[in-house]
Amino acid sequence: MSKYDIIVLGSGPGGYVTAIRASQLGFKTAIVEKDNLGGVCLNWGCIPTKALLKSAQVFEYLKHAGDYGLTVKEYDKDFDAVIKRSRGVADGMSKGIDFLMKKNKIDVIKGYGKLKPGKKIDVDGTEYSADNIIIATGARSRELPSLPQDGKKVIGYREAMSLAEQPKKMIVVGSGAIGVEFAYFYNAMGTEVTIVEFLPNVVPVEDEDVSKQLERSFKKSGINIMTSAEVTKVDTSGDGVKATVKTSKGEEVLEADIILSAVGIKTNIENIGLEDVGIVVDRDKILVDKFYQTNIPGYFAIGDVTPGQALAHVASAEGILCVENLAGHQVEPLDYGNIPGCTYASPEIASVGLTEKQAREKGLDIKVGKFPFSASGKASASGAKDGFVKVIFDAKYGEWLGCHMIGAGVTDMIAEAVLGRKLETTGQEVLKTVHPHPTMSEAVMEAVAAAYGEVIHL
Amino acid sequence: MSKYDIIVLGSGPGGYVTAIRASQLGFKTAIVEKDNLGGVCLNWGCIPTKALLKSAQVFEYLKHAGDYGLTVKEYDKDFDAVIKRSRGVADGMSKGIDFLMKKNKIDVIKGYGKLKPGKKIDVDGTEYSADNIIIATGARSRELPSLPQDGKKVIGYREAMSLAEQPKKMIVVGSGAIGVEFAYFYNAMGTEVTIVEFLPNVVPVEDEDVSKQLERSFKKSGINIMTSAEVTKVDTSGDGVKATVKTSKGEEVLEADIILSAVGIKTNIENIGLEDVGIVVDRDKILVDKFYQTNIPGYFAIGDVTPGQALAHVASAEGILCVENLAGHQVEPLDYGNIPGCTYASPEIASVGLTEKQAREKGLDIKVGKFPFSASGKASASGAKDGFVKVIFDAKYGEWLGCHMIGAGVTDMIAEAVLGRKLETTGQEVLKTVHPHPTMSEAVMEAVAAAYGEVIHL
Repeated sequence: MSKYDIIVLGSGPGGYVTAIRASQLGFKTAIVEKDNLGGVCLNWGCIPTKALLKSAQVFEYLKHAGDYGLTVKEYDKDFDAVIKRSRGVADGMSKGIDFLMKKNKIDVIKGYGKLKPGKKIDVDGTEYSADNIIIATGARSRELPSLPQDGKKVIGYREAMSLAEQPKKMIVVGSGAIGVEFAYFYNAMGTEVTIVEFLPNVVPVEDEDVSKQLERSFKKSGINIMTSAEVTKVDTSGDGVKATVKTSKGEEVLEADIILSAVGIKTNIENIGLEDVGIVVDRDKILVDKFYQTNIPGYFAIGDVTPGQALAHVASAEGILCVENLAGHQVEPLDYGNIPGCTYASPEIASVGLTEKQAREKGLDIKVGKFPFSASGKASASGAKDGFVKVIFDAKYGEWLGCHMIGAGVTDMIAEAVLGRKLETTGQEVLKTVHPHPTMSEAVMEAVAAAYGEVIHL
Repeated sequence: MSKYDIIVLGSGPGGYVTAIRASQLGFKTAIVEKDNLGGVCLNWGCIPTKALLKSAQVFEYLKHAGDYGLTVKEYDKDFDAVIKRSRGVADGMSKGIDFLMKKNKIDVIKGYGKLKPGKKIDVDGTEYSADNIIIATGARSRELPSLPQDGKKVIGYREAMSLAEQPKKMIVVGSGAIGVEFAYFYNAMGTEVTIVEFLPNVVPVEDEDVSKQLERSFKKSGINIMTSAEVTKVDTSGDGVKATVKTSKGEEVLEADIILSAVGIKTNIENIGLEDVGIVVDRDKILVDKFYQTNIPGYFAIGDVTPGQALAHVASAEGILCVENLAGHQVEPLDYGNIPGCTYASPEIASVGLTEKQAREKGLDIKVGKFPFSASGKASASGAKDGFVKVIFDAKYGEWLGCHMIGAGVTDMIAEAVLGRKLETTGQEVLKTVHPHPTMSEAVMEAVAAAYGEVIHL
């Protein structure tokens, strides 16, 4: 029986990053994966969707070339080619992980892994043991009882990024990051898209101002949006699919070719041997301590299967901390209050920390500043005037409580706020940090200035 | 005679920002401007060039639409429309400054201002006085004796952004930000471009790795580059223009329609009354103390006319500090070692702090990390794999000495490094700041990890 220092179960952005860091730290490491290396994120999530969205963005440029002094007479999208490009990017990245595993001397064990007591894993009949086992099996698309997925007319994200044919009409149920990104993509490609959101606002985890801006931008680009709305029934019997949608105004039946269900995720904790080992779960999450040990010594869990935000970068960070702690490094537990979240439609959304509503609900005395890109020189020059940066500071101590951005390129701009918050910056320090001109990033400085009554360009 | 608390001479990004902040602080403020509000930056620099560059970038997407699964059969640029769009953006911004002056109750005095002793300014025959006068007259394109500008065949940046006709062949002399941006723009538009740089590397103020990457990228896109090369003679007698270029290999005569001289700037310190008042200058810079007072009390100077970097954001920051100090605020002098610099071609360049060479020349013991975008998932998905992030840390104290980026969107990413350096972060803190996945900004975290032997995706 092969014996390792660490075996990681699952090779998503939690698992493969953990394995690499473990190997760097001198642990003899193996990783178990039943499918392609890279998990959902790399093969069916973060990466291939960004490829689709890039095609959509370039397609938008073709449509609006005249705005930039350019002329385009005949243009089209080749839906197959767009999908193929996306798959190619995912495949390339997966091969890259393969290379990284080899380079870091990590044994890749292909097959279905199941935990056994005594710090063992059975992979399709072969047993492996390790001093420490790290569970990183991730999650999948959640199914609502009222919206069972048949993979054809009612689909999840996985099918949505590899459809053989572009639907003419699509209903997207749920307006979190996944729903919003596909809604943007398909609308840009020419599909008629309706978003159905159960809560009163789209992107409901975001600051309300961001939700409203996205709704405005999406409506302007032709996406239909129904909020406080629920799909109560689906009929797939005919040519297309009929969805009964309940709103405060009553019931309405929408017709479409396809319904995309994007109502969150369900963790992959079934049939991996948790019960055999006696690992405690709460609802569908594995309970862990601050360095990711489960209730059973030697068994750890990171990523979507644990209670933290189900995001690729959280999974990676958790895995790194987990093995650094095992290596005896002095590490601080992850600050779950300082995790950025991003949505990559156009406009992009990026945020970190408390929303204005959350800050007020906590009874905090706050200063709020907002700077619209319509007042930014760079945004004007780039034809990207939609959106804003909004910042929230504690009035008394100057703590940067939250930062909320919507607009072009903001997913690359949020890092400044995350680092600033980690370093416990004050608003005045951000204000006195010279941001280059002309950039979109000046809007961060200006939003902070607005919070302190010192904004220049408003 | 009208009397003010503060009169600002010149309405560029130094002057108008200073005036707004002064007014916010309760000073009765006027601004003197002989031309459009906004100065060179807004009318003939930062902003209109970014509009041109955006058109160029979109044109590149049209050319490469196939890479994204899109088809374009007939497309072209309309050079006039591209220029017109750029002028429109500049005009719109200038009107915006007009609005900001009114909103902040700043008197705009139109005309040519000349300093007088006794804290007075003469504007075309009318005298105004103030408790404090702030000189912000900026700079213009520098002329080399060997390359006199006739505004037709040998031009500066101003003519370069409003040519009536697109040149077929262009020689760009100098490869600082201005030269590089126009070289990119005209090459993208279809002009045959040759860059002639006196020093051994293009963008010579940047880290050598950045210079080399830009040279590779530019050559790939068809720009001819001659380094360690000097234009010794220009002949404008014929149809076009002939430039004699001296290199280590000897002399060569290049022909072109137009030569763009982009060899730096010359400050506007002539005929503004400095001598009458007795204000001391050193070469072409006005000498000031740490809060921008000249040798004569009551006369201050900010922006390009002073010794700091000649950049719009520096001018703005200086002006703000100058009037905050006048208002009795406790302010810290500007840290000129933490000023970001940006070049907005494709790929973009952004940097702050010491280059590797500078750090080594100082005898510092350093850790260097580099992460190429070719290893970034987001870059792959976006088709933007050119470039990298390079970081330099002090080996002993962990101080972030420098950050150098080249690639898509990096001009918006450098703010993280500037803020981190201001807050005296260490590499370990950047490393433990969770960057969202998948973004280009992860490359910052990975470059830092590379410096510390902890890089994941390499």
